[in-house]
Amino acid sequence: MAATTEGVVPASTGPGGWLTSVSHACLEHASGFVAERCDEQFLGRGEGALAIEALPEFVREGKFLRPLFAYVGWCCARPEDEAALRAATSLELLHCFALAQDDVMDRSALRRGRPALHTQFARWHRDQGWNGSATRFGESAAVLSGDLFLVWSEQMLRESGVPEPALARGWPHYDAMRSELAAGQLADLVNDARSLPSWDAVLDVIRRKSGNYTVRRPLEFGAALAVGDAPVLRALGEYGGLVGEAFQFRDDLLGVFGDPDLTGKPVSQDLRDRKASSVVVLAVAMAEAPQRRELQLLLDEEFLDDDAITCLRGTIAATGAPDQLEKLIDRRVRKALDAIDDTAIPSRMLETLAVLAARCTDRVR
Amino acid sequence: MAATTEGVVPASTGPGGWLTSVSHACLEHASGFVAERCDEQFLGRGEGALAIEALPEFVREGKFLRPLFAYVGWCCARPEDEAALRAATSLELLHCFALAQDDVMDRSALRRGRPALHTQFARWHRDQGWNGSATRFGESAAVLSGDLFLVWSEQMLRESGVPEPALARGWPHYDAMRSELAAGQLADLVNDARSLPSWDAVLDVIRRKSGNYTVRRPLEFGAALAVGDAPVLRALGEYGGLVGEAFQFRDDLLGVFGDPDLTGKPVSQDLRDRKASSVVVLAVAMAEAPQRRELQLLLDEEFLDDDAITCLRGTIAATGAPDQLEKLIDRRVRKALDAIDDTAIPSRMLETLAVLAARCTDRVR
Repeated sequence: MAATTEGVVPASTGPGGWLTSVSHACLEHASGFVAERCDEQFLGRGEGALAIEALPEFVREGKFLRPLFAYVGWCCARPEDEAALRAATSLELLHCFALAQDDVMDRSALRRGRPALHTQFARWHRDQGWNGSATRFGESAAVLSGDLFLVWSEQMLRESGVPEPALARGWPHYDAMRSELAAGQLADLVNDARSLPSWDAVLDVIRRKSGNYTVRRPLEFGAALAVGDAPVLRALGEYGGLVGEAFQFRDDLLGVFGDPDLTGKPVSQDLRDRKASSVVVLAVAMAEAPQRRELQLLLDEEFLDDDAITCLRGTIAATGAPDQLEKLIDRRVRKALDAIDDTAIPSRMLETLAVLAARCTDRVR
Repeated sequence: MAATTEGVVPASTGPGGWLTSVSHACLEHASGFVAERCDEQFLGRGEGALAIEALPEFVREGKFLRPLFAYVGWCCARPEDEAALRAATSLELLHCFALAQDDVMDRSALRRGRPALHTQFARWHRDQGWNGSATRFGESAAVLSGDLFLVWSEQMLRESGVPEPALARGWPHYDAMRSELAAGQLADLVNDARSLPSWDAVLDVIRRKSGNYTVRRPLEFGAALAVGDAPVLRALGEYGGLVGEAFQFRDDLLGVFGDPDLTGKPVSQDLRDRKASSVVVLAVAMAEAPQRRELQLLLDEEFLDDDAITCLRGTIAATGAPDQLEKLIDRRVRKALDAIDDTAIPSRMLETLAVLAARCTDRVR
């Protein structure tokens, strides 16, 4: 893909087509960068035989949502740019870091319908007939893979070709994002371990983990690379916070009610994991006394079989929490689009942001 | 501590006293930086109540060996400098990342005679009476703490105040160090899982993990910050590779024969962990046929009790492997000191490098 004076990606089609071209370009940048780093570390080394295949492949499976937001942030203030696209793409490697390690911590065997990284490494250990626990090995190897993604993300950003003064504006956003990501995951673990966190505690984690990390920070980061402090940056920040929260509400609804064929995860995985997600906590908060007793009883079970899951889903639905969350999602998306109206953002990017908001919140996987 | 035209640290005493002042200054910089970052992430948040105490404390317990080498690398080519000292100190946070996660992967309950980070987090979980496995929680929280150290190390380096052209010379060394660290740990896990790796495979991991990471890369990194490609850098690289290997040989000897009161780890921890360390692999390689059968038998045991450990130590000693490793250590240190002789390195730094080589290889903990 060559940069042209017209822009990096042909602006032929509407926002949807443009986003598709951008995400393809991100995929090539990200998987190419990781493949080079893997060659440096693992080429010709037996112990790297799986990593050298699995890590670039893991990158290629992504949705590139965060790079898209970052690049849109840039394009709200500046013309398309190859270096900015590479800088934006670095966020996908940060996301790979989070996924690789989250799946270990949550013991999720599947990711996007395929074996999670730790599952792949454990299987490899078993196939080699090695000593010790294959599960432990898989978990450790996935944590280390996550570490490598974390390191390579920063390296990719630094080497993106974005000039120094622009990079200097981006670093505070980037640093905040990575620190919040790890600290937010810690808060998430604590919430899951507590009997039932409050709705406020859940909202706080959502704001830090998804609201900030998925939408707001990437947008602000991209816009900050492009331009100094500006009303555009503030408007994007507000849009990002709202769409990010709505994104997580949708994620939590899918974690309980999603179709496993589409989500690539087992039915009601969040319930099986006792995840104190927004829909569960809101259901408990909204429940009538008998419903609350029933929810509490089910949530306290050691093991939930399929009947118990069905029952739990029914009770959660009966509290009205899912409908209420749908309303919260709608309201946030509308407020988000209002926030960017009447700004200096080019109309093509306004349309793109509307498409992205819908894609984040009106999805089945 | 204020920078003066005379240098950051008073050059009053000999190399030993100077190293002590430098490591105190590193300690203040590192723990101060981490305390600030912890405040940003955790202040006033219940889920951060342990992290905000434990993370800066974890930093304060270090030996600051890698910052010392990096700063000595700088001082081989340039006068003392406050910004360079901060840049050098960033390597201690990289080391904290490695320790926090290695202890999870090795299931080491102790670190420097105190509870490892994951042990502290698990205990906290138990004290709060939370749901779920305290062990799993402790491990996840320690991995996340490691992630934060990894992020903060790079941030500390970037914000050290070392000017851009100097930093640009340091990044390739820094990047190589962090990638090798994670990739080397993966190689280490594979070696431990294999029945018995070859001596060459063990040497390869030692070179990448310790030879490079503990001495060589920090020295080269510090020297590269100070100066472009130069004979000094090459000489320090050679010294570093040799002292680093010798450092790891000593570490492996202590892992089998060390005094637990001094090492802060249980007796023969490496044997209990079935660690394919240099002394074990060399013992098997040097063993006569009956000794090898005995070693193999013991190493294949599911559980090693104290008698078995004593027996195993005796057999390893009888192969002559420990004596041979002592010789290898001596030889490497002598070659290392030869490598830096007849260079442009100031005599005060030559003395300091001799003291550091001894400190790395002639130690009981």
